[in-house]
Amino acid sequence: MAVKMDKEALSAFLVEVFPQVHEDFAIEHVEEMAVRVRLKVAERHLRPGGTVSGPSMFALADVGVYLAVLSMIGPKALTVTTGCSMDFMRKPRAHADLIASCTLLKLGRTLAVGDVLLRSEGADAPVARATMTYAIPS
Amino acid sequence: MAVKMDKEALSAFLVEVFPQVHEDFAIEHVEEMAVRVRLKVAERHLRPGGTVSGPSMFALADVGVYLAVLSMIGPKALTVTTGCSMDFMRKPRAHADLIASCTLLKLGRTLAVGDVLLRSEGADAPVARATMTYAIPS
Amino acid sequence: MAVKMDKEALSAFLVEVFPQVHEDFAIEHVEEMAVRVRLKVAERHLRPGGTVSGPSMFALADVGVYLAVLSMIGPKALTVTTGCSMDFMRKPRAHADLIASCTLLKLGRTLAVGDVLLRSEGADAPVARATMTYAIPS
Amino acid sequence: MAVKMDKEALSAFLVEVFPQVHEDFAIEHVEEMAVRVRLKVAERHLRPGGTVSGPSMFALADVGVYLAVLSMIGPKALTVTTGCSMDFMRKPRAHADLIASCTLLKLGRTLAVGDVLLRSEGADAPVARATMTYAIPS
Repeated sequence: MAVKMDKEALSAFLVEVFPQVHEDFAIEHVEEMAVRVRLKVAERHLRPGGTVSGPSMFALADVGVYLAVLSMIGPKALTVTTGCSMDFMRKPRAHADLIASCTLLKLGRTLAVGDVLLRSEGADAPVARATMTYAIPS
Repeated sequence: MAVKMDKEALSAFLVEVFPQVHEDFAIEHVEEMAVRVRLKVAERHLRPGGTVSGPSMFALADVGVYLAVLSMIGPKALTVTTGCSMDFMRKPRAHADLIASCTLLKLGRTLAVGDVLLRSEGADAPVARATMTYAIPS
Repeated sequence: MAVKMDKEALSAFLVEVFPQVHEDFAIEHVEEMAVRVRLKVAERHLRPGGTVSGPSMFALADVGVYLAVLSMIGPKALTVTTGCSMDFMRKPRAHADLIASCTLLKLGRTLAVGDVLLRSEGADAPVARATMTYAIPS
Repeated sequence: MAVKMDKEALSAFLVEVFPQVHEDFAIEHVEEMAVRVRLKVAERHLRPGGTVSGPSMFALADVGVYLAVLSMIGPKALTVTTGCSMDFMRKPRAHADLIASCTLLKLGRTLAVGDVLLRSEGADAPVARATMTYAIPS
């Protein structure tokens, strides 16, 4: 299966469709059934102590798998998140960016499932894992 | 088991510990093992079309169960989220506040589990459900 | 919305479609969007120490929400489980039956979501909670 | 971190601690923070049509991550499952064994998290994914 939207196409799509949040994210890498996305951590993503907030980690996992789906099916903006499971395993490094490695496990006609590992930049051990499911409009 | 922090105490705690986000939330009701919390929906919580964003729903579920835990054990700010599962079931009403009804199912010495139903104000059918788990410092 | 299959119809369906396991379960109560199902705990459901095994609890939650869906839509046996999240919160009572209280939160055209609380017979505190999602054939 | 129980030690432990089910499983491979376990599919694991049942897949994922934890910490039988999230993505091949590839993402002092991919023997695409969490007795 070929990639339908590459890094440039996905980045342009993000600016257009998520004007409020696109500056939070940078698409680092796109390949068949997988993308890597960066959360450019800023003050608004932090909790006291400098750790990245849970909602910011959720947002990164969600946008990451969403972009992985669109990279394969093209710009169907109406693809919606239907489910999420997440485990928060370690404290993110203070003030470091977070990198989400997203892999699609299933890309069906109406349903997609993707796994995500979130790591603080420069660290090996994941700070969180997530599975996101999406409904694809027909 | 008696409530250790009532609505006023929890509201004051929220202001102190989450200075960045406390204005997003209002604690509506506190009782034994249950709280009800409102997301005061503003432009920054919305996606194009006026629907509340996934990260905003996650944030509401997370803060709701966190406050339910603290209402029973007192102000242990270091209680941390360890897990989340969420199902997004309906589109929230455009521009309506979201109300989270949070119930603790387990409050152990080191682990708490709470269920959440999120509804748009004035609607019966839930827009999302969530289960949140927390580690309590000893 | 009216119930399409009552307790007797669901029980007969269970015998027909799940010949291997129907003797494990008894349908206790059926109402709009909710059912209560009993796991008739026998030696084969137990772990050493007399506690009910995880797979037996999963099986009860799964069959419970499945029957809740069919009670509303009729005997579409091809409805399949697509997702599950479960939290195991307390040790079940040794040798007591387990009762699953299942509630449908969403019953869409192609997707259903149900919540379950599992309790040992005669106990108030739930031993586990689960959310099950199903794809409904069109 | 060194493996404390190898394939032989884990296999012997399984026979001793799970006398009812050990014949269902074969440990295929053990390495640091990862194991591979086979479900030897038999009639009792099947649903009509020859597909492996949901509870059998749950059982395989659960025993797999449990063994991955014990391979690293030694035979602490009282380690208990506290949570599970699972996505069922494809129909397993009729009558083929299932292989679980289990990876520990976190192995803390009191909490472990492991991811699992389940595949029908000889197939690449996973039939299911799971994340299991465990509480480790201190």
